Amino acid sequence: MDVTPHEEPTRAKDRPELLPFLPLLLSIWNDGILSAAELAALFAGVDAHQGLSDTGRAALKSWMDPESPPTATELAEVRGRIRAATLSHVADATRSLSDLGLAVWASAGGGGPWKDPEAIEALRALEASLGVLGAEAARGILGVSSPDLQETPVARRGVDSGKLRDLLDGDVRGLRDQVLELLTRPELTIAPGLPLPEYRERVLVAVQFLADRGLGRLAYPKEYGGAADPVASIAVFETLAFGDLSVLIKFGVQFGLFGGSVHQLGTARHHAEYLERIGSLELPGCYAMTETLHGSNVRDLETTATYDHGARELVVHSPTSGAAKDYIGNAALHGELATVFCRLLVEGEDHGVHAVLVPIRGRDGTVCDGVRITDRNLKAGLNGVDNGRIVFDHVRVPVDNLLDRFGSIDRAGHYYSPIPSAGRRFFGMLRTLVAGRISIAAASVSATKLGLVIAVRYAARRRQFGAQGEPETRILDYPLIQRALAPRLATTFGLHFAVRALEKRFGTPSADDAIELEVQAAGLKAYASTHCAETLQACREACGGQGYIAENRLAALKADTDIFTTFEGANPILYQLVAKGLLSRFREEMGELNLWRALQYLGERAETSLTELNPVITRRTDAEHLLDPEFHLAALSYREERLLRSAAMRMRARLRDGVDSFQAVLEVQDHLVTLSRAHVERLILERFQVACSAAESTEVSESLSAVCSLFALSRIEADRGWFLECGYIEGNKSRAIRAQVNVLCRDVSDLGEDLVAGFGIPEALLPELMQRPLE
Amino acid sequence: MDVTPHEEPTRAKDRPELLPFLPLLLSIWNDGILSAAELAALFAGVDAHQGLSDTGRAALKSWMDPESPPTATELAEVRGRIRAATLSHVADATRSLSDLGLAVWASAGGGGPWKDPEAIEALRALEASLGVLGAEAARGILGVSSPDLQETPVARRGVDSGKLRDLLDGDVRGLRDQVLELLTRPELTIAPGLPLPEYRERVLVAVQFLADRGLGRLAYPKEYGGAADPVASIAVFETLAFGDLSVLIKFGVQFGLFGGSVHQLGTARHHAEYLERIGSLELPGCYAMTETLHGSNVRDLETTATYDHGARELVVHSPTSGAAKDYIGNAALHGELATVFCRLLVEGEDHGVHAVLVPIRGRDGTVCDGVRITDRNLKAGLNGVDNGRIVFDHVRVPVDNLLDRFGSIDRAGHYYSPIPSAGRRFFGMLRTLVAGRISIAAASVSATKLGLVIAVRYAARRRQFGAQGEPETRILDYPLIQRALAPRLATTFGLHFAVRALEKRFGTPSADDAIELEVQAAGLKAYASTHCAETLQACREACGGQGYIAENRLAALKADTDIFTTFEGANPILYQLVAKGLLSRFREEMGELNLWRALQYLGERAETSLTELNPVITRRTDAEHLLDPEFHLAALSYREERLLRSAAMRMRARLRDGVDSFQAVLEVQDHLVTLSRAHVERLILERFQVACSAAESTEVSESLSAVCSLFALSRIEADRGWFLECGYIEGNKSRAIRAQVNVLCRDVSDLGEDLVAGFGIPEALLPELMQRPLE
Repeated sequence: MDVTPHEEPTRAKDRPELLPFLPLLLSIWNDGILSAAELAALFAGVDAHQGLSDTGRAALKSWMDPESPPTATELAEVRGRIRAATLSHVADATRSLSDLGLAVWASAGGGGPWKDPEAIEALRALEASLGVLGAEAARGILGVSSPDLQETPVARRGVDSGKLRDLLDGDVRGLRDQVLELLTRPELTIAPGLPLPEYRERVLVAVQFLADRGLGRLAYPKEYGGAADPVASIAVFETLAFGDLSVLIKFGVQFGLFGGSVHQLGTARHHAEYLERIGSLELPGCYAMTETLHGSNVRDLETTATYDHGARELVVHSPTSGAAKDYIGNAALHGELATVFCRLLVEGEDHGVHAVLVPIRGRDGTVCDGVRITDRNLKAGLNGVDNGRIVFDHVRVPVDNLLDRFGSIDRAGHYYSPIPSAGRRFFGMLRTLVAGRISIAAASVSATKLGLVIAVRYAARRRQFGAQGEPETRILDYPLIQRALAPRLATTFGLHFAVRALEKRFGTPSADDAIELEVQAAGLKAYASTHCAETLQACREACGGQGYIAENRLAALKADTDIFTTFEGANPILYQLVAKGLLSRFREEMGELNLWRALQYLGERAETSLTELNPVITRRTDAEHLLDPEFHLAALSYREERLLRSAAMRMRARLRDGVDSFQAVLEVQDHLVTLSRAHVERLILERFQVACSAAESTEVSESLSAVCSLFALSRIEADRGWFLECGYIEGNKSRAIRAQVNVLCRDVSDLGEDLVAGFGIPEALLPELMQRPLE
Repeated sequence: MDVTPHEEPTRAKDRPELLPFLPLLLSIWNDGILSAAELAALFAGVDAHQGLSDTGRAALKSWMDPESPPTATELAEVRGRIRAATLSHVADATRSLSDLGLAVWASAGGGGPWKDPEAIEALRALEASLGVLGAEAARGILGVSSPDLQETPVARRGVDSGKLRDLLDGDVRGLRDQVLELLTRPELTIAPGLPLPEYRERVLVAVQFLADRGLGRLAYPKEYGGAADPVASIAVFETLAFGDLSVLIKFGVQFGLFGGSVHQLGTARHHAEYLERIGSLELPGCYAMTETLHGSNVRDLETTATYDHGARELVVHSPTSGAAKDYIGNAALHGELATVFCRLLVEGEDHGVHAVLVPIRGRDGTVCDGVRITDRNLKAGLNGVDNGRIVFDHVRVPVDNLLDRFGSIDRAGHYYSPIPSAGRRFFGMLRTLVAGRISIAAASVSATKLGLVIAVRYAARRRQFGAQGEPETRILDYPLIQRALAPRLATTFGLHFAVRALEKRFGTPSADDAIELEVQAAGLKAYASTHCAETLQACREACGGQGYIAENRLAALKADTDIFTTFEGANPILYQLVAKGLLSRFREEMGELNLWRALQYLGERAETSLTELNPVITRRTDAEHLLDPEFHLAALSYREERLLRSAAMRMRARLRDGVDSFQAVLEVQDHLVTLSRAHVERLILERFQVACSAAESTEVSESLSAVCSLFALSRIEADRGWFLECGYIEGNKSRAIRAQVNVLCRDVSDLGEDLVAGFGIPEALLPELMQRPLE
């Protein structure tokens, strides 16, 4: 083996025209291995470089040739030379490897082709093809790691959490403050670990406490003590999520689901008879939709309500044990009346799912005749809620108990409905679910915020390991912890804005908003609840053993919210619902799913792609581009559109072939879910970008923009397989995105304590651990 | 807009030479949108096709042109023609789109260039470039979806779970059966939801029950009632993980950690004095390593043991409140003696971490003088284990209580050690952790298996939604459920074999195995515990509301195993440990991290890459290749090697620049973790492949091979961003891998019930829900 150090006079360092390349070369040898394909691309770049002499090109390539690497001495010499050349103007030289190289060249007296803009452009192109973050790499070569240069201005300055909170809370600030204050009262402060009966009792008392302050009926009409303000109602709900989550869910079952069903599905007589008593909790009730064998598939519920015209009564019955109403909150102990979803049979005809009010228990707690209730007992979480299973054995109720806004029975005993289409009627019947889903999305965001406050603040104080002779390092300064927490923190901000925008739209819906609201509510509920589960897991792990101790709150937060991914609609089913909504809107846009027009459209898209996918864009790696909100939105929109159109084509191909629509959906199920998630992420990004522009304070706006960039880039990074697969980005850009995400994770983590303070969660609601030294 | 249907005589269907292309064309229009880049590649392929006339080429391209798409009528005609042509030999024609095309051509009388192997090869290349699974697409066009053709032979045949179990259990079958039988006894059957004191008492009784049967001391020497059989000991532990996990952990603390420390770190006098009483649980004890402020960083523990020569005593002391021994199992209630890890100070010199036996509580439960114990009370899970915090205030113990295998104090009061290097001594001190980590890896696999049995069997019975007029569909037939469960089931099998192989190696270590054992134990513990948490989450969600009900076991399984990612070493730290092991082995291989030699090596690698990354391989999409075990192993090995070498380069560049080694590791932390995970996945795949070949039954071997392919391909798919980024695969291959994973998910799900039955978990240990109709 030839071990003589190479010393060839043609090497780059000795040729002035090659000086600008030195930092690039150093970075190639410093930071890992280039694949054969990458080397080939680099060589091609050098070959195409017009500003170089032939000898220069050959010398450059010999430097990059893995067969003939530079010696350690040579590398050290090069580094020394670069450092010496740039000592006087470090800051300018650390914008990119090319700038650094040009500085070396200038300090050597200049000369040669390097004033030629084209040559400089070619140099920059070569740098871009490496997919390194030039500024980071340049600092690495210079050994500059002082905080002054490493931190972006944004991170160094911090952010005023008061102003941030103003932006986040907006016009519900007052109401939130009121609820936050109540959450610190003893009535709402429930220690973990109570035995089941005691815990359930405490939760009932807490819900009564809230009802007494009028917080349960805000969405109801004013004549029944309410404020006719659904937005305020959701604001209360999402704030309560910082407290005990059993209280939250029991509150939601009583006022949102049970009361909401009477309000939304009932008519004046039901409102007059029940709403006030429901809002005061004088009449505790249940929302009995799910059956043991029918959760997601509500349309095929089995419970029946058969109309007996002679008695003017409905006979409510569970025909099979699988038709038992199951997991029903408030059923095991406290509920007295239940909104029971069942098939309405009139004159022998099945009119599909309707809601009927059925008494299940007297004031004294005795279960009604014909009703059998089983306690569902201990669960993984939410043990302060008394879930139960209800079976009906031919229970008779007056026909007036039919919540008859969407379908009724006339005096002659005939069924009639203001909505002729059974499908639309069914959709109306599920209306309460939209409010419920928005509420769960909002509560998921709150629970995620609480988890992040705990984890970020813990990580900022907890130290472990460190350089020799130094104090140990804060674990928040560990890249792995930053990777685990910062992108999730960014997503949480994005979700906050998206859910808040949806709440507003829900509060003042326009006529044709119904489907859009349903799609957004389903999509955001699914996305937010999965995000919540994943984030709380990351928070628990970031807090190590402390995260496992009950008094530190993460244990209950995790266990209680775990079911959020399932109730109010299992997430995979909700994503399918979103996809169906998107597909039907696409169909409407395309007219009657006319193949010719769809393909025409596709042709237009392909042209657009040609523009979008030009090599300059697919390979661009400069920070200006990577941090450009337009790039972010274009990428997420491109993904959504492409997934939508291909999903439409695939569905159409199957339906045209006579495949049953259920089967067709099944066959492209993973495609549909991918589409829906892409849609939700695009929606979140749009809302997030709007919020950044809307911030009055420049400082808040700049900090939030960094957080927003992290959300967008980390989503693109997470799906880089897809973007690479279809040529939207190339390998070098993918690597640059990863490097940029790392930088943003560090910046956002540096801002972390300020950012979580912006959530406005009072110290009193945080674990005691947060309020004393770690010991 | 021109809406006249296209009717050009040059179109493909009318030119015999183009007949073989029809299925390809149809599939392009059927299954989504091609990007501009993909279209360009296709056009180039057509241009290069030697077997076509110029008119033929132009016609083909016009058919693929999105600007001038075929009409619906034309497409229907083409489909009709293909179907008619292949009616008689469906099976042959469904191997690929090319085969289907050739069948169409043959049925039209043949003729032209299509007997030319090169032309046929070019056709197949065009098909490969689409990245569709040809066989699937061909069946789609033919409308063939009968189970006969859709299922692979493997899935149709099922697998004998008895034979599978024989393979999985191997030579520990008898011991496992014995433990499984005990697990059904009332002493070990603990209902969820007991109050803390009662639960802890029940768990103590259960551990005593196991001790009475000699199961705690299997690893100890025979003279103290043991069997000197660490493999048997781990087999017992992993089987106990099918039962109550508090029992498992309390068992592990007593016999594995506490007993193991006396056995491994102590000498003959300690063995004689304690081992028998520990093995019988006559002497309950603790393993007091972790401190409140020092978990992962054991080297910097603060507790001190200062030698007082006059009294021949050690003074054990917690100098700060952060030095309290924390989260210690058995400490809050039952432990009487504790192995306390502390800095040994002799003659004023700090000799680093050693272990000292310190009495903490008398037989009557009174806490010893100078010892303060706080109950850690309620946790997220494992509430049958009494974790506590221990503070020592100058507690004196005889010097004989020093566990002195690796370091001792002589009669003259001087410190001495058989191991001169402080680093090696520290490593020896942590030996008990290796057994602990293997045990936690094994227990994670068991808990994962139990979760999968519950979820797979539930999904196979639970039905929801369905085609009009059909019975509802089993949710196990939903692609989304298959995607959620099947790859995780595959990984669980892989982990089983990898952990079992490690156990065997641990049982009969060779001289130079120490580092390899530590690396594998750390890597598999981290990978298995994270896999367990993710899988149980997926299982819970697959079971919907039932998954949340305590009696169905998933709730406790999730909560109890959640801390597995943290204890016995937090996973991120363990991954760093793995990476450091790999890097130091690499350094040894490379000699003294000589730059020149490392780069030389790199040159060799780059050459290899050129061979590996040739376009035929990076674009190959046929099933034979995608299902080839050699391809799988080559891909995972390539990733590991490339990550290892680039990590080495990056570390070296930093160290050479004078960066502190802690800081250097910090800067490349995410790279190191990626490397370690890649290493573990390659290791798992190797063990899995060996196990497939070792199966005596062909049927078991074939089924397992499908499961193994799913593990490998789903791992490649999950990391396709990386493989695409460095050019190891191209977009079409990435798509084909996704399609192949979908097929394998279906096949493995079809085998699901047989596969989980192979785990051999008795019905009596499953939730009652599994043993009766779903209702």
